[in-house]
Amino acid sequence: MERRKKVDCLVRADYVLPVDTGSTVITDGAVAVSDGKIANVGKYEKIISEYDAMNILGGSGRVVIPGLINTHTHAAMVYFRGLADDLPLKEWLDNHIWPAEARWLSPEFISDAIELACLEMLKAGITTYNDMYFFGDAVGAATKRMGMRAVLGVGILDFPSVAAKTTDEYFEKAEGFIRNWKGDGFITPCIAPHALYTCGPDTLKRAKKLADEYNIPLHIHLSETQWEVQEIISRYGRRPVEHLENIGFLDSKVVAAHCVWLDDCEIELLARSGVGVSHCVESNLKLASGIASVTKMLAAGVKVTFGTDGAASNNDLNILSEMSTAAKLHKAVSGDPTALNARTALLMATRWGAEALGLGQITGSIEKGKAADLVVINLEKPHLTPIYDIYSHIVYSVRASDVETVMVAGKVVVEEGNLSSGSESGIIARARDWGEKIRNSGRH
Amino acid sequence: MERRKKVDCLVRADYVLPVDTGSTVITDGAVAVSDGKIANVGKYEKIISEYDAMNILGGSGRVVIPGLINTHTHAAMVYFRGLADDLPLKEWLDNHIWPAEARWLSPEFISDAIELACLEMLKAGITTYNDMYFFGDAVGAATKRMGMRAVLGVGILDFPSVAAKTTDEYFEKAEGFIRNWKGDGFITPCIAPHALYTCGPDTLKRAKKLADEYNIPLHIHLSETQWEVQEIISRYGRRPVEHLENIGFLDSKVVAAHCVWLDDCEIELLARSGVGVSHCVESNLKLASGIASVTKMLAAGVKVTFGTDGAASNNDLNILSEMSTAAKLHKAVSGDPTALNARTALLMATRWGAEALGLGQITGSIEKGKAADLVVINLEKPHLTPIYDIYSHIVYSVRASDVETVMVAGKVVVEEGNLSSGSESGIIARARDWGEKIRNSGRH
Repeated sequence: MERRKKVDCLVRADYVLPVDTGSTVITDGAVAVSDGKIANVGKYEKIISEYDAMNILGGSGRVVIPGLINTHTHAAMVYFRGLADDLPLKEWLDNHIWPAEARWLSPEFISDAIELACLEMLKAGITTYNDMYFFGDAVGAATKRMGMRAVLGVGILDFPSVAAKTTDEYFEKAEGFIRNWKGDGFITPCIAPHALYTCGPDTLKRAKKLADEYNIPLHIHLSETQWEVQEIISRYGRRPVEHLENIGFLDSKVVAAHCVWLDDCEIELLARSGVGVSHCVESNLKLASGIASVTKMLAAGVKVTFGTDGAASNNDLNILSEMSTAAKLHKAVSGDPTALNARTALLMATRWGAEALGLGQITGSIEKGKAADLVVINLEKPHLTPIYDIYSHIVYSVRASDVETVMVAGKVVVEEGNLSSGSESGIIARARDWGEKIRNSGRH
Repeated sequence: MERRKKVDCLVRADYVLPVDTGSTVITDGAVAVSDGKIANVGKYEKIISEYDAMNILGGSGRVVIPGLINTHTHAAMVYFRGLADDLPLKEWLDNHIWPAEARWLSPEFISDAIELACLEMLKAGITTYNDMYFFGDAVGAATKRMGMRAVLGVGILDFPSVAAKTTDEYFEKAEGFIRNWKGDGFITPCIAPHALYTCGPDTLKRAKKLADEYNIPLHIHLSETQWEVQEIISRYGRRPVEHLENIGFLDSKVVAAHCVWLDDCEIELLARSGVGVSHCVESNLKLASGIASVTKMLAAGVKVTFGTDGAASNNDLNILSEMSTAAKLHKAVSGDPTALNARTALLMATRWGAEALGLGQITGSIEKGKAADLVVINLEKPHLTPIYDIYSHIVYSVRASDVETVMVAGKVVVEEGNLSSGSESGIIARARDWGEKIRNSGRH
């Protein structure tokens, strides 16, 4: 009899969705996990005949999917969740969000807020997130403590903020952050010029140069509102995507959040240059920014992925919900009930998300050699009964609360729906204390 | 010292949202429940000084809202959840849903399916639902077993189905059902002519006459698709709402589901006649039916409420999710981030829902003398931290899984998130058995 290879654990389930290049469904499947990586994936019978594991996770009534990828957020803004809703964008920003940021942001605030954000994301099956905010070292340290994978971008602006006084200082801080984290196994530093209306062409070119130099992603807001498009046209005589193309900014290292207001030429430019688009459907709806032309982008070959945006404008960090909302909305908007089907939605939320962040070799699918970033969902729930099509269930019926086990790089971080080490109630208590202070400060 | 009145229980919480005529928030509030009714509501200190209860539910970190009202569903269709998704409407109906109904519907099927639907709804904080389907006695009996409140309409069609062969037979069955249930404390019978394209003017008039005779609600599909509008215009030379007005169908007893394609005149007619509209936003998106003009309807004074539609087209029975989707979507569609604010959304999901169903005296708000249909939500969750605005939390952040305790007419039916009596796993197991049979039958 052949000797079986020892592995750290097997994750077994009624369904394994590898999100490989097909729409494969492995029934009664298993994933063998060794040294934080996927040793193999296939039918349970075959896997168990080849691998010997002390520990078997998952089980019947379960489905395993790749860890979800949140390609655009400002994670620390969870502390401003619901601070100001149902308001015009300008009032929301000018009178609430920006004053709150100016008053409260600090490494201590960020450190505590990131723990809450990571907790919320992990419990919702998100294993990797792409952030744009300030105090990157605090973000990185807190993310690592929580055992999560992230691409972290320190924001660049052409005006002073709590993070820096001059454009040069922003760049110095960004480069310091990149040097601190380059090569880390969990944290990929990136560079995050905020937007075209807050960063001039020279700043954008400088950010691009830095990204090329360090071979890291570029994270930017793009064409979120109609106002922005008009503003860029009036400043530069070109639409936003054309402006970026013109200054040599666009390539496959760029992750562009929102992309709500694009014309056909711009969609073509994004497709041709391999830019990853982060579709933040719930934020775009709630802030009345508009509805991105996702079906057109997909048809043109743009790599569209899902982002939650910050929880102050959403109001949660939940990619399952973004998938469900987007998959339904774009059917109505396009008048085609076959648009953005469940298989495509899951692909966007996993494999494409990882590829857009430059992590396509590392995560985003359940394939041999990739990191064991896995999510086990419990299907034994009334709202998940009966089951005819598992993809349809994942996109249209599964809720964040159905996430049972989450593994990042082979380490179980969520177990039976709860954080497996560390104190959830401690994280929540600290968040309440901060919330209390913010609320009582009157001017947020 | 004054003697305190004995009541059955108090429900205490950090926040009580009565959904009375203001947007009241009672902090550290309590509801006194006696004989299935609300004896009083107010500050905990005041309530405890007046009432003596053996049992105190809820507690700190909780919010109490009125039971949610689902104003349009075909509850038994939960057994077809996900049977066929991402398909054109005609293919979905002709090749999947209608053949499945013809093959499978029976009182036994309905009885089991309704248990699953009620379980899903109760766990999501829905205490009352408005149904349109067949085999009404089975629906009613199962709903009562589950301890839920409902308005149940036996469907009327001008063509044969598994339920009846002729229009006369449909009416005989409907009238029999009405007689069986009229006066029941939990079940309100209604009459449910399916739609304008499946019921001729004589059938609609006959249904209206029956509703008047028994003083019961009328439940109908209205202007769900553009096809329907064109069809009605070509048959009768009038748009659907005008057609109904013309035959004397419209009054405040009517609950009209969908209302996606209305012109301004039709909106005005619905407002003037007091028709309750059931906005089924997720179904309308997923089937690519379109997006109803909710902000226009609200501005015109139409009583707009929320419906899930059947789970075969949605794919769940979750009013919290419908509220959240609608409150976000209509901001983007109207270009106004203040549209359909959180307070309005909760009003639509509770008080207005009850009023549209003719149950405004009985349920839909937390007010003295109404039935104790209450939902306690646990706020001690990462995604509900911190808290600045409790209304905003309910609409934009709370999930069905945060529902902890549900009471219908003073009886606790959901406790710590689970059914308090009866077996959830039994209901799920029966549903799986049916699902297995349906899947294996090949032609659903």
